Amino acid sequence: MEEVKLHGTWPSPFSYRVKWALQLKGIAYEYIEQDTSNKSPLLLQLNPVYKKSPILVHGGKPICESLVILEYIEETWPENPLLPTDPYDKAIARFWAKFADDKGAMMWTMLGTTGEEHEKAIKDILESLRTIEEHALAEKKFFCGEKIGITDFAFVGIVYWLEVIEEILGLKLLEAESFPRLHAWIKTFKEEPIIKENLPDKEKTFAHLKRRREREILLASS
Amino acid sequence: MEEVKLHGTWPSPFSYRVKWALQLKGIAYEYIEQDTSNKSPLLLQLNPVYKKSPILVHGGKPICESLVILEYIEETWPENPLLPTDPYDKAIARFWAKFADDKGAMMWTMLGTTGEEHEKAIKDILESLRTIEEHALAEKKFFCGEKIGITDFAFVGIVYWLEVIEEILGLKLLEAESFPRLHAWIKTFKEEPIIKENLPDKEKTFAHLKRRREREILLASS
Repeated sequence: MEEVKLHGTWPSPFSYRVKWALQLKGIAYEYIEQDTSNKSPLLLQLNPVYKKSPILVHGGKPICESLVILEYIEETWPENPLLPTDPYDKAIARFWAKFADDKGAMMWTMLGTTGEEHEKAIKDILESLRTIEEHALAEKKFFCGEKIGITDFAFVGIVYWLEVIEEILGLKLLEAESFPRLHAWIKTFKEEPIIKENLPDKEKTFAHLKRRREREILLASS
Repeated sequence: MEEVKLHGTWPSPFSYRVKWALQLKGIAYEYIEQDTSNKSPLLLQLNPVYKKSPILVHGGKPICESLVILEYIEETWPENPLLPTDPYDKAIARFWAKFADDKGAMMWTMLGTTGEEHEKAIKDILESLRTIEEHALAEKKFFCGEKIGITDFAFVGIVYWLEVIEEILGLKLLEAESFPRLHAWIKTFKEEPIIKENLPDKEKTFAHLKRRREREILLASS
């Protein structure tokens, strides 16, 4: 079997997407922590386009962008499937994974801003959460049915990182009464052994994201 | 065989991505033009999340988002493949298709803005074009080798729409001397019968995009 390496950063939900997928598939891999504040020459060489992790290196060949990596993992190691087999169900799974990526960026905007931009980000996030609640989650355990998969991993920001960001900002967007399906999903998701045993330390994440907010606000005001 | 319908809008490169894929696969389909200025109740019902086309309806079931649709077409009708078979090559194809979507939005920002925002968009587009020239296109006929595929369709904005936008703005970003590989690819791409025979009328596109620019600038200033 060819060597598998994962370059990631501990506070990144995108790195966790890949970690979980590899662990669920039972793939042995070496994890290499990347320093975001001092990018290594190797990182720049492996991902010259975006210059960021996660990067999966399989048999010496780099694959970048977490959703692209997840598809690669699914095709290379088909055991414990992460996507439905039916092409239509697969399209729906991909549609929502893409939605998670497209709309998820707003969470980081909310973290790093104040004033009008911050308020707009909050409004956008609430709208996205409502869309997920109404359209993506029916009476299913996970996004694609009874088994955890790529779409659940894609929505990981909501499970853990949004919670921490809400605490930092002192607000609550994801109210249980307004989002019963999302709350049920988050509970189920967090109870999965692969997730429960592989999440960053909460206090450390809180401190890290708080510093990130302070730094970005300072930068914007200078 | 189940009925195939494509809801699209004639000036949209995203609709063309899907048209070309269906035509290349030899799939008979009904094309339904959607009015962007007056969205039909059917469109809102088929794509309640984004409320836009293209939407592929196969056997009564809607699939939205052009790249998701292309993957669906590839899996449902595997003849004349649009993606490489090797998982690594497939990951590279998907990486660049995603890049085209992520960066391509800037082209529409450039069209609809003036001043600082406009200048920033131009700078970003030039940077993206340089990235494509340097990293995506080696000595290959198409993005994934000798055959046209999803990644080529994803980059369609550069082939035709960017050309029209450059004319409207009276500037030239894609200079032949600076982007020899991209120029060679554009030439090859445009010569493919499926593309050549299926592009919107240039004068009509010019007039449409010019009106769009004027409308957006007016809106921004009011």
